[in-house]
Amino acid sequence: MGASGKRPGGRSARVRDAVRQATLGELAEHGYAGLTVERVAERSGVHKTTVYRRWGSVEGLISDALELARDEPWPIPDTGTIQGDLRGIVQLVRSGFADPELGPVSSAFVAAAVQSPEAARALHEFFVARHDQSAEVVRRAIARGDLPDVVDVREVIRVAVAPVYYRLFVAHEPVTEQDADRAADAALAAARAGVL
Amino acid sequence: MGASGKRPGGRSARVRDAVRQATLGELAEHGYAGLTVERVAERSGVHKTTVYRRWGSVEGLISDALELARDEPWPIPDTGTIQGDLRGIVQLVRSGFADPELGPVSSAFVAAAVQSPEAARALHEFFVARHDQSAEVVRRAIARGDLPDVVDVREVIRVAVAPVYYRLFVAHEPVTEQDADRAADAALAAARAGVL
Repeated sequence: MGASGKRPGGRSARVRDAVRQATLGELAEHGYAGLTVERVAERSGVHKTTVYRRWGSVEGLISDALELARDEPWPIPDTGTIQGDLRGIVQLVRSGFADPELGPVSSAFVAAAVQSPEAARALHEFFVARHDQSAEVVRRAIARGDLPDVVDVREVIRVAVAPVYYRLFVAHEPVTEQDADRAADAALAAARAGVL
Repeated sequence: MGASGKRPGGRSARVRDAVRQATLGELAEHGYAGLTVERVAERSGVHKTTVYRRWGSVEGLISDALELARDEPWPIPDTGTIQGDLRGIVQLVRSGFADPELGPVSSAFVAAAVQSPEAARALHEFFVARHDQSAEVVRRAIARGDLPDVVDVREVIRVAVAPVYYRLFVAHEPVTEQDADRAADAALAAARAGVL
């Protein structure tokens, strides 16, 4: 055993990271429909039987990649105004899906979750964390006195980002920067009106 | 040939309807992942080679079922108020997905479209028609003087229904009647504020 054997979990963590990176790489290139345990094993350099034993299936690989993505910090905007912050969040969502590397991976997560209950549970947990992180901009607005303190902070985030996802994954329409700003502004208007 | 042979398209229309009904039945029972041309052929009583020749693939079957669904009238509410009408539309979406027969079919269309470009095009066309039909409630509100005439009538519909789809197909959260009403009210508040 090498030096890493002295630190419990060191080798295991490296294997997990290699498999996760290979999963993300395969998703970026081939999407969810093209993801196989064999390809992830080959790309990661981890033996196929190890991948099957620890991750079980394609759904297990997706769930693990999402679990790690969930724990990564997200660059929550801090522009000084709730309008600027909400627009910033919705633009992050829009630009993320438009990104040639990140976009296909994020889309693959959405596609996996509509087909696999295990992936749906993992994506749900991801969004629980994401909503809570993003809601910080609404909490700050309440603290500044910009919004009433009865506002449902997570619902403001849901309503702000929902039209972007709706266009991309339901109605299959393009999303412009203007569409994204308008979605953010609509959520803010509803929050100000006391609806959210 | 029987009597139907005298009316051009009669037999063809019956075959199309049988295949479409079989597609919907298979989607209700097995979802998109379980849909095969063989099963649709068997269920419809139409020969497999005919189904392959006219519909080509599972994606062709989905697209055709969506095309027929698109042309069906939708019960647009007419409650006398824009709030009542918008809430009615969003509740129709919510209850449709909650319906034990209709829900799995509608979900299968969404799932198919995130995987197949052909199904995505068909679902897009379906939503173009659906947005236009639903926007009638906003046009009526403008005509009554309840909303300013600069409002983007289709965007009000998108923003109203988007949170329901977002919860169901992205964040994988339950959707209550209250959630649906709140989504409708948020779109209305944004329209009144001049954002949409």
